[in-house]
Amino acid sequence: MDIAELRTRNPDHWMRATAIRALALDAVAAANSGHSGMPIGMADVATVLWSKHLKFDAANPGWYDRDRFILSAGHGSMLIYALLYLSGDKQITLDEVKNFRQWGARTAGHPENFLADAIETTTGPLGQGISNSVGFAMAEEMLRGRFGKKIIDHHTYVIAGDGCLMEGVSQEAIGLAGRYELGHLIVFWDNNDITIDGKVSLSDRTDQVARFKASGWHVQEIDGHDPEAIDAAIVAAKAETGKPSMIACKTHIALGHAAQDTSKGHGALTNAEQNEAAKAAWGWTNGAFDIPAEIKSWWEEAGSRGAAEREAWEDRLGEASESRQKEIHRVFKGEAPKKLSAVIKALKKQVSEGKPKVATRKASEMALEVINPIMPETVGGSADLTGSNNTLTADLGVFDTDNRKGRYVYWGIREHGMASAMNGIGLHGGLRPYGGTFMAFTDYARPAMRLAALMKTPTVFVMTHDSIGLGEDGPTHQPVEHVAISRATPNTLVFRPADAVETAEAWEIALKQTGTPSVMSLTRQNLPTVRVEHKNANLTEKGAYVLAEAEGKRQAILLATGSEVEIALAARDLLQAEGIGTRVVSMPCWELFEQQDESYRRRVLPPAGPVRVAVEAGVRFGWDRWLCGERGNAKKAGFVGMDSFGASAPAEVLYEKFGITAEAVAAKVKELL
Amino acid sequence: MDIAELRTRNPDHWMRATAIRALALDAVAAANSGHSGMPIGMADVATVLWSKHLKFDAANPGWYDRDRFILSAGHGSMLIYALLYLSGDKQITLDEVKNFRQWGARTAGHPENFLADAIETTTGPLGQGISNSVGFAMAEEMLRGRFGKKIIDHHTYVIAGDGCLMEGVSQEAIGLAGRYELGHLIVFWDNNDITIDGKVSLSDRTDQVARFKASGWHVQEIDGHDPEAIDAAIVAAKAETGKPSMIACKTHIALGHAAQDTSKGHGALTNAEQNEAAKAAWGWTNGAFDIPAEIKSWWEEAGSRGAAEREAWEDRLGEASESRQKEIHRVFKGEAPKKLSAVIKALKKQVSEGKPKVATRKASEMALEVINPIMPETVGGSADLTGSNNTLTADLGVFDTDNRKGRYVYWGIREHGMASAMNGIGLHGGLRPYGGTFMAFTDYARPAMRLAALMKTPTVFVMTHDSIGLGEDGPTHQPVEHVAISRATPNTLVFRPADAVETAEAWEIALKQTGTPSVMSLTRQNLPTVRVEHKNANLTEKGAYVLAEAEGKRQAILLATGSEVEIALAARDLLQAEGIGTRVVSMPCWELFEQQDESYRRRVLPPAGPVRVAVEAGVRFGWDRWLCGERGNAKKAGFVGMDSFGASAPAEVLYEKFGITAEAVAAKVKELL
Repeated sequence: MDIAELRTRNPDHWMRATAIRALALDAVAAANSGHSGMPIGMADVATVLWSKHLKFDAANPGWYDRDRFILSAGHGSMLIYALLYLSGDKQITLDEVKNFRQWGARTAGHPENFLADAIETTTGPLGQGISNSVGFAMAEEMLRGRFGKKIIDHHTYVIAGDGCLMEGVSQEAIGLAGRYELGHLIVFWDNNDITIDGKVSLSDRTDQVARFKASGWHVQEIDGHDPEAIDAAIVAAKAETGKPSMIACKTHIALGHAAQDTSKGHGALTNAEQNEAAKAAWGWTNGAFDIPAEIKSWWEEAGSRGAAEREAWEDRLGEASESRQKEIHRVFKGEAPKKLSAVIKALKKQVSEGKPKVATRKASEMALEVINPIMPETVGGSADLTGSNNTLTADLGVFDTDNRKGRYVYWGIREHGMASAMNGIGLHGGLRPYGGTFMAFTDYARPAMRLAALMKTPTVFVMTHDSIGLGEDGPTHQPVEHVAISRATPNTLVFRPADAVETAEAWEIALKQTGTPSVMSLTRQNLPTVRVEHKNANLTEKGAYVLAEAEGKRQAILLATGSEVEIALAARDLLQAEGIGTRVVSMPCWELFEQQDESYRRRVLPPAGPVRVAVEAGVRFGWDRWLCGERGNAKKAGFVGMDSFGASAPAEVLYEKFGITAEAVAAKVKELL
Repeated sequence: MDIAELRTRNPDHWMRATAIRALALDAVAAANSGHSGMPIGMADVATVLWSKHLKFDAANPGWYDRDRFILSAGHGSMLIYALLYLSGDKQITLDEVKNFRQWGARTAGHPENFLADAIETTTGPLGQGISNSVGFAMAEEMLRGRFGKKIIDHHTYVIAGDGCLMEGVSQEAIGLAGRYELGHLIVFWDNNDITIDGKVSLSDRTDQVARFKASGWHVQEIDGHDPEAIDAAIVAAKAETGKPSMIACKTHIALGHAAQDTSKGHGALTNAEQNEAAKAAWGWTNGAFDIPAEIKSWWEEAGSRGAAEREAWEDRLGEASESRQKEIHRVFKGEAPKKLSAVIKALKKQVSEGKPKVATRKASEMALEVINPIMPETVGGSADLTGSNNTLTADLGVFDTDNRKGRYVYWGIREHGMASAMNGIGLHGGLRPYGGTFMAFTDYARPAMRLAALMKTPTVFVMTHDSIGLGEDGPTHQPVEHVAISRATPNTLVFRPADAVETAEAWEIALKQTGTPSVMSLTRQNLPTVRVEHKNANLTEKGAYVLAEAEGKRQAILLATGSEVEIALAARDLLQAEGIGTRVVSMPCWELFEQQDESYRRRVLPPAGPVRVAVEAGVRFGWDRWLCGERGNAKKAGFVGMDSFGASAPAEVLYEKFGITAEAVAAKVKELL
């Protein structure tokens, strides 16, 4: 690449883009860690996008109708930090840039959405950003459908690298975007032909242009260092509103550096001499972290370019009725409507009185049937298991190319893409996504479920068929460790409700969250109503509570969740018949129980004394906290559950054969007494 | 579809294929569960493949050079059970077919490799079979490279559905197969346009033909009910040896049934009247599970068709030198060579004497450097983190189109595809795969890691950068719950070695496994040698052991793994200096410790008495088993570790800020004393 030619072709553009390059080089060198080459290679694309197209107002990053910018290739985080600092973001200051990758800095190794308002999503695990972006673009379509073009009408721009496109989840994202004709989604592929191990061709020869076209994308190929070509491609991509756009940008990683076009250039460029030589080649004469005033002010002008548009938007918003304005602010803040508690209470009352014997997946549908009509911000869906996950309710309508107001998404057989896109829908704001698959396929969705927790976005994962109770499909489809996996993940509420009352309570809690995702672990098989006496209070909010008290001297406490609460109650009957006073504690949500104060926890699980036996159709892993910890006694602790994978047979046979029965629980108690 | 025309076009073929249809319909109806439509739709393809092309000998399913048949669309399990029963497999008898999906039957809901010798891999979670198949086909290339065409020269055939192709992992598989020109891999796509939720077009419009071509595949499109077309396509696919082949088979799900071409047809067809009508339309007059003798004997002939080929192969094998024969049998049995223990012992001695301060990822490389030369069956690799995972050793050579003997695979940025293909390599037999990524990306590989455990295949997952010790990359890249996740999974050995000695021991154990996968949880950061006194015995085999004994009265036991053993030892120094007798227990593998007898466990963790404090730079989840369980005392139990996600900063800052220090451990002990 002839740098001299690039410098002279468009000298103004060159120096503005090179401000990004210089900052990236300086910050990575100072941290002695990070990725220099990608920001250097994509500086031209980013400069044209941010200064001519991206609708944003650096002073007001939270404006609902801004364009969304997603750096899917999150390792190139200095690109977004440089862009934000240069354009005048209030949070990403020069000091932050200088503190790149240090404790307490907003400029983390990878962009973290919770560290700066202008960072829309956390990226780093490859493929996530591009998959989130499908959700962002869907959300834009849905909200444009709901609130009209005057309120919502913007683009989602993504920079993705070779790594993003090699990750399988990108195929799920590409397929979804093509199918749903997400015309406001524009992806730049940083086609630099380099990965950490070497040339891309070392491990892949896929023709990405053909691949995107195969899924219905509008595709262009350009020189990613030519500002005119970049501009023209963005103009064309915006003009194509019926298809998502991919712009393949041929770039040189670490352009102008000794490490250009090498995998070394992908990493941290820390050789001072080489870095000086690169700056010299770029024509950059300023010192480290020093941006010439005229370049900084040009960038700041670019950063305030959107102020007028934002003001015009605020005027338009102000013209809407007061109730509509309130509603828009409510949904963007993620506030549940006041009515939510009332409809949940009414449902609980009805259930406690009617005592239906239903699967908790069905109970979840019953809850959604009363929730969805009063929460127009919910977006449901399933990864091709709609009838099994019970996620579709009567009034949602199906999201499609001719029905952008539809609130139900057929995600296809794409658990991972669904989870990641749901995160994007929630992060966009204005909508509250939930989506279903089988609990065992938590495995497929895991990378995105973890990111929901890290990003503090309250996605609801509806995971049905949550144990061997799934039956005949066998061990591949039977979760045994997945409830434990979800519980082990920080900032995640895992609900395993025992009946339709607890299920309704779980939904109420999940939909009131603003910073924590929820996992709903729901049964395939029918369960009796165990909460037969109506209480206004949401007992699930306590995480665990006494469902049935011991009669006579309390000798045993049975702890159970979900489908095994029924078994615990039956075991209690057996034990009480023999005069063994037995309490049953239902534990629908460990994390909420952990948050209760010591005195409440002590009331539910009194110290020592009684035998404690837990029953759950999953692995014991994690249960010792409640059995032996919490002032328990290891000698008086027992567990009835699974210690292996399941098997293929009818559910009731499996419970019998794996010994998860009331008799087994009672026998375990007696053995320990 | 005009069934009458199909019946008359090729009546012999029709009735032979319809035997599969009838068995599928009968078995699913009897089980009242399962998937009828797929076996019915793909019966023609399967019949042509199994009777004319598939190299197999029903009486000897274990023959190393057989063709491999993989039903990636595993829900259509009755297809493979019908094929096996009809062709005379000894294990899948008619009784087994009648017991479809019942307790104890080999005919589980989804095909399970451990239930019948002729089932090559467990399928069910969509996309896994096609991804395994890449490993099978790679293994075939590698072994052909090593042992020559006379010994290994076969095909891998796959039937994949729309679900398999929508799962992202399929893109990883397609990309790998295209890149590595796996010409002996032939995939049939059951292009029936139906998913559970409805038409495929409900959620996808991808042009699959274009997509496969984009990754370098040879693609044909045929009528999947035309036996001549099927045969011709297989012939052409076999003739194309420089590219993997995809044959898009246009089929009708539940062909000839009332539910044909509908999503209902995807599931269990149990309506007796409709089923009778379907059989009538097929021209099938026999009763349930009753196969006309001439059809059965035709199929049995097809099943013995390969006997001569097998015998010729055995003759060829017999011509090889005795040592070569022994070697071939050894690697296919998965037996580690006798020399393994000796080289590990020598390495341990060298380490104990030299006391290097190295990261355990580097220690892993040191182990592999002595292992790989004496185990020609190992196949290494990394998901584009070769230099970080330290998985490449000097003598491996790189697997490529011009070097099939290469034993190192550049998997690209495809953790999931790598894990699934590694399972395939192992299941093929003759090779022992290991591959690396960051521990946090266990998330991406999870579905395949779980299947390795379920399938009892000893894949080794080399997971480096296993804690906040990763440093600046931040919380997306820092595992905190992933060690717990791996430990929660049945039949998985999770090693978190403390130094180069334990790392060597862990490798020895992992490579001796024949039915259990291993997860190596390894550090980025350097660690001191803690096993400074050489012992021949493999202490890691015990799972946990006393690394440093208390001096004076034993008041505290510190439990630690991996990088935190160093911290525990330093805490012990602090405590001993204050006269508090402190034992340090290193716990490199919980699962192996669990397998020790009570008396050993009691010696390591004596009942009550001493305070127990665990230190691990991950979540507490699971630790209470050792702290409070195992005759511990909840009041004297403490944990020093993580209770949130990590952050971006240098590793040593993170340890300090998150309070994982010797001082914190000592303070916790004193607080509990």
